[in-house]
Amino acid sequence: MEERTEISTLGEFGLIDHLTKNNETKNISTLLSVGDDAAVIDHFGRQTVITSDLLLEGIHFDLSYTPLKHLGYKAVIVNLSDIYAMNATPTQIVLNIAFSNRFSLEALDDFYKGVYAACDAYGVDLIGGDTSSSQRGFIISVTAIGEVAPEKYVKRSTAQVNDLICVSGELGGAFLGLTLLEREKKIFAETGAQPDLEGQAHIVGKLLKPEARKDIIEYFSEENIVPSSMIDISDGLSSDLLHICKQSNVGCVLYEDKLPFNDEAKEFAYKLQLDPTACALSGGEDYELLFTVPQSYFEQIKTNPSISIIGYITEAAEGKHIITRGGNKHELIAQGWNHLK
Amino acid sequence: MEERTEISTLGEFGLIDHLTKNNETKNISTLLSVGDDAAVIDHFGRQTVITSDLLLEGIHFDLSYTPLKHLGYKAVIVNLSDIYAMNATPTQIVLNIAFSNRFSLEALDDFYKGVYAACDAYGVDLIGGDTSSSQRGFIISVTAIGEVAPEKYVKRSTAQVNDLICVSGELGGAFLGLTLLEREKKIFAETGAQPDLEGQAHIVGKLLKPEARKDIIEYFSEENIVPSSMIDISDGLSSDLLHICKQSNVGCVLYEDKLPFNDEAKEFAYKLQLDPTACALSGGEDYELLFTVPQSYFEQIKTNPSISIIGYITEAAEGKHIITRGGNKHELIAQGWNHLK
Repeated sequence: MEERTEISTLGEFGLIDHLTKNNETKNISTLLSVGDDAAVIDHFGRQTVITSDLLLEGIHFDLSYTPLKHLGYKAVIVNLSDIYAMNATPTQIVLNIAFSNRFSLEALDDFYKGVYAACDAYGVDLIGGDTSSSQRGFIISVTAIGEVAPEKYVKRSTAQVNDLICVSGELGGAFLGLTLLEREKKIFAETGAQPDLEGQAHIVGKLLKPEARKDIIEYFSEENIVPSSMIDISDGLSSDLLHICKQSNVGCVLYEDKLPFNDEAKEFAYKLQLDPTACALSGGEDYELLFTVPQSYFEQIKTNPSISIIGYITEAAEGKHIITRGGNKHELIAQGWNHLK
Repeated sequence: MEERTEISTLGEFGLIDHLTKNNETKNISTLLSVGDDAAVIDHFGRQTVITSDLLLEGIHFDLSYTPLKHLGYKAVIVNLSDIYAMNATPTQIVLNIAFSNRFSLEALDDFYKGVYAACDAYGVDLIGGDTSSSQRGFIISVTAIGEVAPEKYVKRSTAQVNDLICVSGELGGAFLGLTLLEREKKIFAETGAQPDLEGQAHIVGKLLKPEARKDIIEYFSEENIVPSSMIDISDGLSSDLLHICKQSNVGCVLYEDKLPFNDEAKEFAYKLQLDPTACALSGGEDYELLFTVPQSYFEQIKTNPSISIIGYITEAAEGKHIITRGGNKHELIAQGWNHLK
């Protein structure tokens, strides 16, 4: 039988001690970590970048198919992705969690294993946070801090007309992974049949254990590339590109045949009679980087196999469009995941 | 009839635009604020201090007697208090909120009025955050960032034997305010009688609209005082002093007759047959500063009417005690509010 230790046996401070006892800091900028009223960071000569996200059970994740270790990993990754989207390097996180008495100490340990695994993989220190009970469900709030050389951060609002629109990796995978897991959950509820995830490691992985594109930021740094604008894809390519267009006051043209897909993901989409392009445009949570660069970078960028050039920036008056494989021009509409609707 | 606008009519991005449309930044260190993947801060030559707290409906607050504007104010204050407890100056906050469809746009506007009022009163910028729906209840996560001159931050772990133990303001008020409001809520539920808060403005205010002790940090700076250790009182004097003792590896002696009380609070305690000393030791949420200073500061400190000298630090082997008015010596025990039990 699995062990189950009630968290109430430790109390709040005992729990914090337990969860952070092996926590070692890796960044010299981390001056003071867990265990005081606040943590202290020294980013002398660098600018500090900060972002924060909520993840709520029943809204952002479903524990019936999300292992807690993966959830801990992902909670960190989605915030690191925002730091990379500023062309910055994440250095620290602060983690707040709340949980009902349904969760045992062993469950929290699993969650923290994922948190620490992400911290190790990305060289980030966990430096503080808050733990609380909740009346219902698991509540996570992660704040990530990063650093960037002065004035090297990249905003959403500075794309220029004629810039190339580029994206890292492959699109639509996380949405297809979610579709698959929701389908298998439904089948299990109706028939008791065990999930069939055969051959779907890519899309399930994209949803449950996403990675942040540290490699792309490192590539920019090595190649002296500074994008003119950048955002990470959390709501879907359409919605996130429209953010860049709105904030930069520009238009855009995308080419359907340039959108990058994973073969396995594409096959699964066809199996479900879904259009892979629609999955890429409207499916969220890919955590790829969407950015623009001046055309002068074309030769450099096109040699990187992790980056696809998918369109270009136009004057605002020209609107926002996608050119289909058949040569038709459609207006680009945000149909990203809107959890307030 | 009060207006009620459904938040779904705005969508997530419309809501963020609405809530932040009058948001002006006040600190030159705020380089990039709301509206990108992350915010950017420039603390060149200063060290960055960071803290984060969750506030959950049903756990940390009860909306049946907490006006949303006050809640917004308090959510900011409790985090600023942690920054001051490091001897640092808060400069920015990041605010994450989630809410069910029970909340209208007007309700969120009230909450944000309180948030902005606290930001204005303390010279702090709101620079980002996340909004989400929740399945149930109102969820708040605030992260506060501050700055401090290099190596001037004050930890919990550096109290020295023979140091004076000092506290700002008056103690136990927030706990008594909570006791009063819980009592009136119960009476209202049972009899329908309107709450009787006559003459209780102090304790109700301490609970619903606490302030952070910016003035004490400014006093330290003007007088060139650097405490040897400091913490803010969120769990109760006992629990928080025991944190200092544990982390500094020291003992302490408190004097009951030196503990500062508000007259109104004391009177209300007696009316309920509560011991004011017990309220001070175990009642949380006073957000006063508890700190230690070397004895050489005695003459300076004792002239400040906002600070009480309540005891001194001893060797760890001497234990942690309080001397009662009657001259008896009792062991100090943490009976602070433990929301995990």
